[in-house]
This record gives sequence, structure tokens and C-alpha cells, in this order.
Amino acid sequence: MPKYVFTYFDGRGRGEPARILFAAAGVPFEDRRLQQEEWPALKPKTPGGSLPILEVDGQPVSQSLVIFRHLARTFGLDGENLLDKAKVEEIVEYLIEFKNAGFKMMFAPKDEESQKKAKEELGSTFDKSCTRVENIMSANKSTDGWAVGKKMTFADILLFEAFETAVARDAAVLDKFPKIKACRAKVQALPKIKNYLSKRKETPF
Amino acid sequence: MPKYVFTYFDGRGRGEPARILFAAAGVPFEDRRLQQEEWPALKPKTPGGSLPILEVDGQPVSQSLVIFRHLARTFGLDGENLLDKAKVEEIVEYLIEFKNAGFKMMFAPKDEESQKKAKEELGSTFDKSCTRVENIMSANKSTDGWAVGKKMTFADILLFEAFETAVARDAAVLDKFPKIKACRAKVQALPKIKNYLSKRKETPF
Repeated sequence: MPKYVFTYFDGRGRGEPARILFAAAGVPFEDRRLQQEEWPALKPKTPGGSLPILEVDGQPVSQSLVIFRHLARTFGLDGENLLDKAKVEEIVEYLIEFKNAGFKMMFAPKDEESQKKAKEELGSTFDKSCTRVENIMSANKSTDGWAVGKKMTFADILLFEAFETAVARDAAVLDKFPKIKACRAKVQALPKIKNYLSKRKETPF
Repeated sequence: MPKYVFTYFDGRGRGEPARILFAAAGVPFEDRRLQQEEWPALKPKTPGGSLPILEVDGQPVSQSLVIFRHLARTFGLDGENLLDKAKVEEIVEYLIEFKNAGFKMMFAPKDEESQKKAKEELGSTFDKSCTRVENIMSANKSTDGWAVGKKMTFADILLFEAFETAVARDAAVLDKFPKIKACRAKVQALPKIKNYLSKRKETPF
């Protein structure tokens, strides 16, 4: 087993899916949580000037999605066959579109018009992303409730993670998307993930 | 071999890397090039309201990068081991950042200020993307000139494709990045790719 060091800020943000992947696989890693004031000194030493960074036996891997896919592949959570792997990645792309709209809203200028525009965009991206994911899940012939195929994959983990903030704000937000809702409950109920979540440091996002 | 139908507009844009992947692997596919006026009728029937779409024995796969990675994986062009696969994907992400800045420039409003801003962003993204890719290539211990490992991968194909328009406009644009330049020449000289390029329909982008 390689030695994993995962470096990100002290929050969920663009890093949390990696931590949940480690938890789901039961694989230990160093969870290096950077304070904002430590970042300027580290930034020029990173491959792309951004976080997260995963070090695998000292070798850096940058770009959040590359890191997630690397872990999913390593832990056998990337889908069972070629077409399933593509379906997993498709769901991930649509969820990331929603997550990106959320980050855009967070960093939008604070004036009323910019906030209103970002909020509308977030709402419409939420609907689009959920509809697309629900459609892909509906095409899944398995009746086990996982997003793709008969086993949990990274798609299910991101389904859980991408909507954490939205569901914390409004528990009914996913009621129109029953497959997504049921799948999130399945992920959350897995002993390893339940255990991780119960001990996780609480952060606002 | 599955039956592949690849649908995109009649240009390179966000579709061409898939066509080059098919050419590199010597795998036949239907190259369905849509005219703009055909798009409104097809759009609601696509999984994500966007092109390209790849059909694999009738099963649709959406999202350009998902399609490229699916083909790379299927054709064995995704890297030889777990860490190489991650490096290939990292290079791809940095190249896509540059491609995205190019699309942003293309669709920027035509007023002087917007054009100037988009052009500056494209220039700085070009420098950043190339520097990052050149750095990852420098860490590759192989001396064969491929971006990752000892074999051609999708990273090399995208290295070739992502800079086609830039190099056509200014042949010296990559002179500061000798590894990228040399790798592009290697890709271009491969008989299957040379043959594909010689027959390819010329489009402005």
C-alpha cells in the first residue's frame, strides 16, 4: 500500500470526495488540512498552483478530479466494465457542473444583482444536473439502487458528497429526484462511511 | 468491436481528439458531422443537451472528456500503470484549461475591451498550461519523448491537437517548450495519424 498524503484546505470544498473515497476503501492517509495563511508559501511548490494535491509515495498528483479518479481506480470504485466506467465519469461530470455553480455562487461579488444571477444559475444547474443524473440512473438495469451497475462506485460517493450542503439547508431539496435521494441514503448508511462522517470535523462548506 | 457513431459539429472544436484517437488506434467509426441547423432538433434528445456524443453499440456516452477517456481506455492509450494513468489525466486537464480559454475567446463579446481581456487570459493560460505540462514531462524518466511513460498515450494526442490552431497561426509559438514541441512532431509523424491528417476535412477551428 503506498503512503498517501492528501493536502487541502480545512474544509470540504474541492477535497472532501477524496477523503470519503479513502474512508469507503478503509485505506489510511494523512489528512493534511492547510490554514489559509500557510497557502501562499506552498502555492509555488505545487504542480498547478492549486489544491488539493495527493502525494502517492511522495509523487504529487494535482487536479481534484484526477485525484478522485486515481483513487477510485486504485480502490476498484471506478465501475466494473468499460461502459460502466464511462457512465460513472458521466455522472461525475454532471455533478461537478453543479458543484462548480456552487463555488461560483460562493465567490460571486456581494452586490444584489451578482448574487441574484449566481443564485439563479445555481438553481438551474441543480435542476439540469439532477435530471441528467437521474436519467442515467434510470437506464441502469440493476435494481440494487447504485448509480451504475451492481456495486457502489465513485459516482455514488459523489452523489452523496455533492449535495451535502444543499440537503443541510433544505432536507426536501432532492424530493423530485427519488433515485438520487435513495442512493445517497445507501451511501450514508454504509458502516465505514457512517463511521467516517460521525468523526469528521465539521466545517461550514 | 463495437459499432461507434461519433456525433459532433462539422469542425475540430471539442470533438477532434476523439477522431484522432480512432485514427491512432486504427478503429473505424461513423463520423457524423452535424450542420448548425440540424442541432436544435437533436439537442433535446441528447443526454446533456450538448455535443459531442459517442454511441457505442447504440449506448450514448456524453461529455467530451468522458468520451476521450473512454476511447483512450478502450484502445490502451490511457497509460500503463496507475500513476501513469493519473499523469496522463493531469496533462489532459492542463491542456483543456488552455482549450477552454480558446473557446472563451471565440465566444467573447466583440467589443474591444472584452476581446482584449479574453486575449490576455488566453495568453496567460497558454503559458501556465505549457509550463505545467512541460514540468510533468520533465519528470518522466523515459527518454523516448512521449509525455508519460514509454508509449504514446492520449496525453500525446491531446498535446498535438490542443495546439493545432495556435501553431497554424504562429509556427514559433511553442519554441519555449521544447518537450511539447518535440512530442507533437512525434505524434504527427506516426503513419496512421499522418494519413488521417492528410485526408481530414479542413475547417477553420
